[in-house]
Amino acid sequence: MKAEIFSVGTEILLGEILDSNAKYIAGELANMGIDVFYKTSVGDNEERLLDAINIAYKRADIIISTGGLGPTDDDLTKETFAKYFNKKLVTHKESLENLRAYFVDPDTEMPLSNLKQAELPEGCTVFLNDNGTASGCMIEDNGKIAIILPGPPKECVPMFDKKVKPVLEKFTNKVLVSKSLNLCGIGESDASEQIKELMLQSKNPTIAPYAGNNEMRFRITASGKTKEEATNLLKPTVDKLYTIFKDYIYGEDQDTLESVLVDKLLKNNMTISTAESCTGGLLASTIINVPSVSKVFLNGVISYSNESKIYELNVNKDDLEKYGAVSEQVAIQMADGIRKKSKSTIGISTTGIAGPTGETPEKPVGLVYIAISIEGKETICKKLMLKGDRQKIREKTVHICFSNLLKSI
Amino acid sequence: MKAEIFSVGTEILLGEILDSNAKYIAGELANMGIDVFYKTSVGDNEERLLDAINIAYKRADIIISTGGLGPTDDDLTKETFAKYFNKKLVTHKESLENLRAYFVDPDTEMPLSNLKQAELPEGCTVFLNDNGTASGCMIEDNGKIAIILPGPPKECVPMFDKKVKPVLEKFTNKVLVSKSLNLCGIGESDASEQIKELMLQSKNPTIAPYAGNNEMRFRITASGKTKEEATNLLKPTVDKLYTIFKDYIYGEDQDTLESVLVDKLLKNNMTISTAESCTGGLLASTIINVPSVSKVFLNGVISYSNESKIYELNVNKDDLEKYGAVSEQVAIQMADGIRKKSKSTIGISTTGIAGPTGETPEKPVGLVYIAISIEGKETICKKLMLKGDRQKIREKTVHICFSNLLKSI
Repeated sequence: MKAEIFSVGTEILLGEILDSNAKYIAGELANMGIDVFYKTSVGDNEERLLDAINIAYKRADIIISTGGLGPTDDDLTKETFAKYFNKKLVTHKESLENLRAYFVDPDTEMPLSNLKQAELPEGCTVFLNDNGTASGCMIEDNGKIAIILPGPPKECVPMFDKKVKPVLEKFTNKVLVSKSLNLCGIGESDASEQIKELMLQSKNPTIAPYAGNNEMRFRITASGKTKEEATNLLKPTVDKLYTIFKDYIYGEDQDTLESVLVDKLLKNNMTISTAESCTGGLLASTIINVPSVSKVFLNGVISYSNESKIYELNVNKDDLEKYGAVSEQVAIQMADGIRKKSKSTIGISTTGIAGPTGETPEKPVGLVYIAISIEGKETICKKLMLKGDRQKIREKTVHICFSNLLKSI
Repeated sequence: MKAEIFSVGTEILLGEILDSNAKYIAGELANMGIDVFYKTSVGDNEERLLDAINIAYKRADIIISTGGLGPTDDDLTKETFAKYFNKKLVTHKESLENLRAYFVDPDTEMPLSNLKQAELPEGCTVFLNDNGTASGCMIEDNGKIAIILPGPPKECVPMFDKKVKPVLEKFTNKVLVSKSLNLCGIGESDASEQIKELMLQSKNPTIAPYAGNNEMRFRITASGKTKEEATNLLKPTVDKLYTIFKDYIYGEDQDTLESVLVDKLLKNNMTISTAESCTGGLLASTIINVPSVSKVFLNGVISYSNESKIYELNVNKDDLEKYGAVSEQVAIQMADGIRKKSKSTIGISTTGIAGPTGETPEKPVGLVYIAISIEGKETICKKLMLKGDRQKIREKTVHICFSNLLKSI
């Protein structure tokens, strides 16, 4: 079964938006074993869209199109596909109700132009929009299939996941189940190299590596006739990867390093405080983005100046002069200082040269010290040599703080 | 003149990467007045690429393709275009030298397969790659033009900007000059609505609105026979927009709100310290990402717990109990407290309910107070009601802090 992905919209041809729908749908189709040999972007223009439809059906069975379902005159995707298939547009009752529900606010009257969004090709399968006003639909005719979806990614992606995928699974007779294993402390190419043979051999489930920001994940996807069959197929490969990468896997699926860390701190009844120089609040800010953090995070200090390292964190003035602010000694005193001052179980500190200025021959851009002070344990300090621009160095430092802390508790 | 953009690479059809090159090139072509009616993505497959080339030249004069110039056997873009145009591939001396320069490290020997990257269609115009090993090129034949560029955006975009644009300008006889005006405190649709007529009337220069993260910008682009002519054409429109949006424009081109703020603080010999509750370090972290910040930023405190608001910022315990941590009174005391403690000219504070939990009937998710304390002035406090998820509320708070502070100094 071959599919072709269409992105309809003049804004795409003008370079005003990134076509993230097409990427998402392509990835999902690949997982389902549906071939995609072409993607086409075309403007809101009936003649050119019709030409593209004619070309696409010579080489594919399904066109999945996104965009051009809006209320204005230049939105004509549905109309053009209906014309190609020689179908009339008729008002779809549930779509109209769904549409009206978006204009319940007495101050906002629904513009009449919106009514057009409830008109759909006769005989089509309708995909109601849970996140917007435009229904999607599927036309099947003479072995040709058109799946027509709205353009905004927050409407298109959930509609594809919840409503289109089950339909496609029926065509392919497959149910897909995926699991992500999230790794830190190892790069994508390193990790992939280690299981190169396994990835090549694995057809069901498949194993796909994805590089993230300072981390990577493997997505394992199995297909079966039932959800149970697919889940069972998944398990041995997931177990195998857990054995191979036991030192690197920190979580699954939606887990982030900081969410796993906050969970672990909560479970262990531990509290944390931060003392940051080069990361300048990024460490605290990243932890604090985890909603359940308030029982865990007590206090943070951004001691960017030397003076504040002394009066906020009780760093020894002589040591600051002797070793400099970017040193093992100061990092350790910062971590100890914030832990004691805040009466938390854990204190964590960063100090470094994030650049682009401030380096010396002995202390180049990218030199960073992090220290972790835990009640009743010896404070540990790590020296890092990081590459990248200012933001990258700060992000990597935060990431390494989290992965080290996770191993320490 | 019509162009069609090709993205060549199986990884695009598998949904593994976002096609950012195509977006960038489309935007630049739009600015140059070159029409793009289709974009096509095709895999690393000779037959399908040849088919796509044949289709494209029926509807366009230029194909601009990215991707498939790597050293491995499956990279075949150049080879396929050469086949279409019936040209031999010949080794290009300068490309070979450029390639060898990438393997100067005595420990790394250049794989023989890389030699392929220096082979180019005979008679083509070569674009040397300043950021990688694959040269790009242009084939002109019988009124058909192919511009073939490497896939990695950090190679493709600079090559397009520096080497392809001047060539295209020759075809179109135009030189383009752009300026961005960066606005805060006004939304994209609001701002666009205000100059709707002006935007419609403006053909040269054109005015295009772009929505950013909590801000927006207008990009004004003029084309002329010379750079001087284009620059002169630009000026009246830029001046007009400065008059209309004088309360909102904070900078131009690469300026960010925080970089403009740090510049202004430096010029006025002012220093700043931060006291954050709901933003949890994001405020400090964003300022500290500006490289020249070290003379300006003194100290920051993330007082997430009530206790730390008392001992770090000298917030009155009774007021905390009476009004709660999320209140005007506490916000003001936090800003005053951090300013006095850090001996800085400015203290700025945030306290709010970022959600998803923690709200009460009186204090819903999205309620945030910010306060700005400036030496010798009365401390001001603003109450905000923000929408969005936890991260969005925190980002908007930071943005509003910066725009208010910028107006206060």
